[in-house]
Amino acid sequence: MSTTATRLGALRGLMAERGYDAFLVPRTDESLGEYIPAHNERLRWLTGFTGSAGVAVVLADAAAIFVDGRYTVQVRQQVDAGQFEVRHLVDEPHIRWLAGQLPDGATVACDPRLHSLQWYRASAALLEAAGMRLVEDADNLVDRAWEDRPSPEIGTALLLAEQYSGESSAGKRARIAADVSAAGARAALVFAPDAVSWLLNVRGTDVPNLPVLQGFALLWAGGDMTLYADARRLPEGFAAHVGEGVRVVGEESFIAHAADLAGCKVLADPAQANAWTQLALQAAGAELVAGSDPVLIPKACKNAREVAGARRAHLRDAVAMARFLAWLDAEVEAGRLHDEAELADQLYAYRAAGEHFHGSSFDTISAAAGNAAMCHYNHENAAQPGRLVMNTVYLVDSGAQYIDGTTDITRTVAIGDPGPEVRRLFTLVLKGHIALDRARFPRGTTGTHLDAIARQFLWRAGFDYDHGTGHGVGAFLSVHEGPQRISKSWSDTALRPGMILSNEPGYYRDGAFGIRCENLVVVQEVEDGLETPMLCFDALTLAPFDRRLLWPELLDAREREWLDSYHQRVMDTVGPLLDEPERRWLARVTRPIGD
Amino acid sequence: MSTTATRLGALRGLMAERGYDAFLVPRTDESLGEYIPAHNERLRWLTGFTGSAGVAVVLADAAAIFVDGRYTVQVRQQVDAGQFEVRHLVDEPHIRWLAGQLPDGATVACDPRLHSLQWYRASAALLEAAGMRLVEDADNLVDRAWEDRPSPEIGTALLLAEQYSGESSAGKRARIAADVSAAGARAALVFAPDAVSWLLNVRGTDVPNLPVLQGFALLWAGGDMTLYADARRLPEGFAAHVGEGVRVVGEESFIAHAADLAGCKVLADPAQANAWTQLALQAAGAELVAGSDPVLIPKACKNAREVAGARRAHLRDAVAMARFLAWLDAEVEAGRLHDEAELADQLYAYRAAGEHFHGSSFDTISAAAGNAAMCHYNHENAAQPGRLVMNTVYLVDSGAQYIDGTTDITRTVAIGDPGPEVRRLFTLVLKGHIALDRARFPRGTTGTHLDAIARQFLWRAGFDYDHGTGHGVGAFLSVHEGPQRISKSWSDTALRPGMILSNEPGYYRDGAFGIRCENLVVVQEVEDGLETPMLCFDALTLAPFDRRLLWPELLDAREREWLDSYHQRVMDTVGPLLDEPERRWLARVTRPIGD
Repeated sequence: MSTTATRLGALRGLMAERGYDAFLVPRTDESLGEYIPAHNERLRWLTGFTGSAGVAVVLADAAAIFVDGRYTVQVRQQVDAGQFEVRHLVDEPHIRWLAGQLPDGATVACDPRLHSLQWYRASAALLEAAGMRLVEDADNLVDRAWEDRPSPEIGTALLLAEQYSGESSAGKRARIAADVSAAGARAALVFAPDAVSWLLNVRGTDVPNLPVLQGFALLWAGGDMTLYADARRLPEGFAAHVGEGVRVVGEESFIAHAADLAGCKVLADPAQANAWTQLALQAAGAELVAGSDPVLIPKACKNAREVAGARRAHLRDAVAMARFLAWLDAEVEAGRLHDEAELADQLYAYRAAGEHFHGSSFDTISAAAGNAAMCHYNHENAAQPGRLVMNTVYLVDSGAQYIDGTTDITRTVAIGDPGPEVRRLFTLVLKGHIALDRARFPRGTTGTHLDAIARQFLWRAGFDYDHGTGHGVGAFLSVHEGPQRISKSWSDTALRPGMILSNEPGYYRDGAFGIRCENLVVVQEVEDGLETPMLCFDALTLAPFDRRLLWPELLDAREREWLDSYHQRVMDTVGPLLDEPERRWLARVTRPIGD
Repeated sequence: MSTTATRLGALRGLMAERGYDAFLVPRTDESLGEYIPAHNERLRWLTGFTGSAGVAVVLADAAAIFVDGRYTVQVRQQVDAGQFEVRHLVDEPHIRWLAGQLPDGATVACDPRLHSLQWYRASAALLEAAGMRLVEDADNLVDRAWEDRPSPEIGTALLLAEQYSGESSAGKRARIAADVSAAGARAALVFAPDAVSWLLNVRGTDVPNLPVLQGFALLWAGGDMTLYADARRLPEGFAAHVGEGVRVVGEESFIAHAADLAGCKVLADPAQANAWTQLALQAAGAELVAGSDPVLIPKACKNAREVAGARRAHLRDAVAMARFLAWLDAEVEAGRLHDEAELADQLYAYRAAGEHFHGSSFDTISAAAGNAAMCHYNHENAAQPGRLVMNTVYLVDSGAQYIDGTTDITRTVAIGDPGPEVRRLFTLVLKGHIALDRARFPRGTTGTHLDAIARQFLWRAGFDYDHGTGHGVGAFLSVHEGPQRISKSWSDTALRPGMILSNEPGYYRDGAFGIRCENLVVVQEVEDGLETPMLCFDALTLAPFDRRLLWPELLDAREREWLDSYHQRVMDTVGPLLDEPERRWLARVTRPIGD
């Protein structure tokens, strides 16, 4: 009997005990975040699927796994088709599917800690309309059935000095608590670990890529804070670091504390915070006031210290990138065509050699030739990593966490001569990147207004890319930070000074090649006596774009000017930090386009 | 005692009789449209205010008029401040203000025919929360108090031949009824007069600027239709023209018919259709299904015949514009500086001399010098029309209704030499107009995605304009047609082939000058073997842009190319239709920029 069958069997046994006709196993965990620690990889344990999004639905005599378009290929490679029917998460959401599977009166169970309240309410309504019942069971059946479940990492959190945070935790709490009381609320639920970590000026060490402290909090209107977290994660001096008024208790105490909030207004974000916390508040008689987490915007608008840190981190990252790109050119020159894993490891090594390095900010996308056409390619999920192929391109999308900033950069590199079609498309993508980098816009402008600026040249030629143009990035926090973003889907978040976003248009041709040009940029005010004050972007990332992929005639004078001055800036700032051979390489690849 | 005082007194007498503590007098009428026939100018009758938006709130011992930012100056010129307090409609909406004015248990009355259901529900809730009651009274008090109220125009409707409509009314009804029954509804409320007119291929003659038949309808899932309108407006042959299954009855019968819909689903748009119809359906036990009018999108996407008609109408309009602009140049040359009224009348005369002319599509904005800085300037509301001033600009925004199409064009004209600052801003505005005209975009793109394309050059220089970039336009229907539009505010309406929109970026400097470059464009498919099929705009409007206002060095090669080929097209199409002197003028003003 296969492992999957055994695990399914154990789960079904527990379902029967508790009288559940169906049980939901989402990939998300208690933090509803993107990065999941090993002990919370419940979907992976049950199905073997390693993708970043998906959900399994287990019935007494059937089971299905739902994934989106990114993973339809991968899921079939990883999941036992004899046990799990594969279905499309977007075309037919699992709850809608489920509504058609079970008889009237059937009971569907889920763990309310693993779902947002918004999802929980919508799903409960859908199932009720289908004559079924959605029940919450925080005593997760998978955790029960998972015999060799790893115990959670208990890494000791870091205390982020004010030289990096730029504002004391007490100062942040007072500032945001004022908004909470202005909203007439007694407290706000600060649920996301990165929001909690920012508010306390601490960083965690136990989730890969994401340096957050695991836990959530209540921020009281007076400025005090109750942190629900495992105290073993807190280092010496935590109390002194965060200042007066921060209480640390275990998550289990939340239920008891909820009772004290009976009759009080509590701000909570039904889309971002889990159902478990909000249902507990509701059950205790608190009045939930739906609204976005009051920490989001202050956290997204980096202060001067955070921006200065980001610049230092990006300079360090640029040194690693320059060394990597110079090494790569030399290796290809010498006829050594490495595989994707070797390339990713080499880049990691250069980064790790730098100061204040705290690991990658996400799994490196190291994609040779046709693999680059898959936006979310991960060589570790491939049967075997691909190898560089002459006369095509190599795409590397990677980033690091440094104590003073988070980086995320994509460069597309010529391996030999990829030919005119690739050069044409690379140049169209770069034109979009340049246009967005050069854009000026008034306050109130959102990323949705700017998205087409980056696409216009591809559109004119009849091409497009099927992902957003930019995502927010945190300060030594999540590399995917909201609410700021640049995309076709509507965002009502106006871009504000200090926000950091990616600028990453691309182009992908199935089975052939992929191109992406990504820098991180920071929003700042245009220093200028303009009639209408304008905002603009300033690039944080400092690495050359591959001139061998350019079709110079497709660039107009201003675009050439931009590229030359950007390359000059790269040479002036990064050059002095390199050894002689690498500096010579950088000088060569950053020389003016004319030359 | 002033007229206003007398009218207020009469109204208050009726309010007292019916026990109302407050009565609302909005500018909108039964059709909730933009253009109001004289006999429905209730706000104007009561207050003297002639603006296009506003509402008066009358209490027993006080009264206030609420207007938006466009009218804060005008309202003080027109309304007796002794009788009406002037307040800001947007900063403090009248219902919110009202909630603070009256004691618990007070009764606020409104005519449910003059408000959308959405407004009615929101306002009722707001007032209830303030301890008051909103009551509906369709026996409008103003109509009672208005002794010399003009009787409605009863113009005979036109039957629009299929050579113009391109599809029979029966065909349209069958097509859209299929959507209604697919939605599981028994009928759809088609409320807007332009939707009703389009569906029946008829046009009205009794509302200024807007050739619609007054009335609303129920479109039945089977394709039959009940039209609630004054049968005196329908010409001979109406029945044959619209085909089987169309019943015409008076509005009063709607209440009785609603009863037949008890227990049935009825599609209605709570934001677009009035409260009176929907409350009647609700009271009768029908189930209101909120959704946008199923006629909107089919009407917005013009068919081949409608587009061909629009091109013919625009060519005719272009002849009038060329003759007007040539005449204007000659007059200024001769030192005759006309006033805004004379200029508007002259342009009207040229249009009226053309075929198939059915009047203006909106009140002409004829604005000299500083008056052009007011986006919605109307010389008829000014103490006296302004006169052309040398070395500044004249802005004329006008349009016409032709049986085969609706036009709307703005040109900004040099009067003498307005100087470099005006030339710089005119060129920045024109660059935005050109960029939007040249844009290509995939299906699914909305106007919100494209708005910044037109603003980018002004933004870069630190300027912006405080209005949308484009509005939809109907086919011999409303010059402001939804849902398609191009603006900063989010629109989820994807642009589709056949949609007609304006492209009208501008710039306004208070008291100094105003600039706007407006063409109408039609969305069409790019005929091309592109990887991703793209849409683009094609200009319908054919009139020269004033080369005397250009700063040619600010145009890049592609922009010059666009302008030269647009001007060539104007010369090739319009030139042959002009008399010799005018043709010579057109040849001169459309010659290549280099020359």
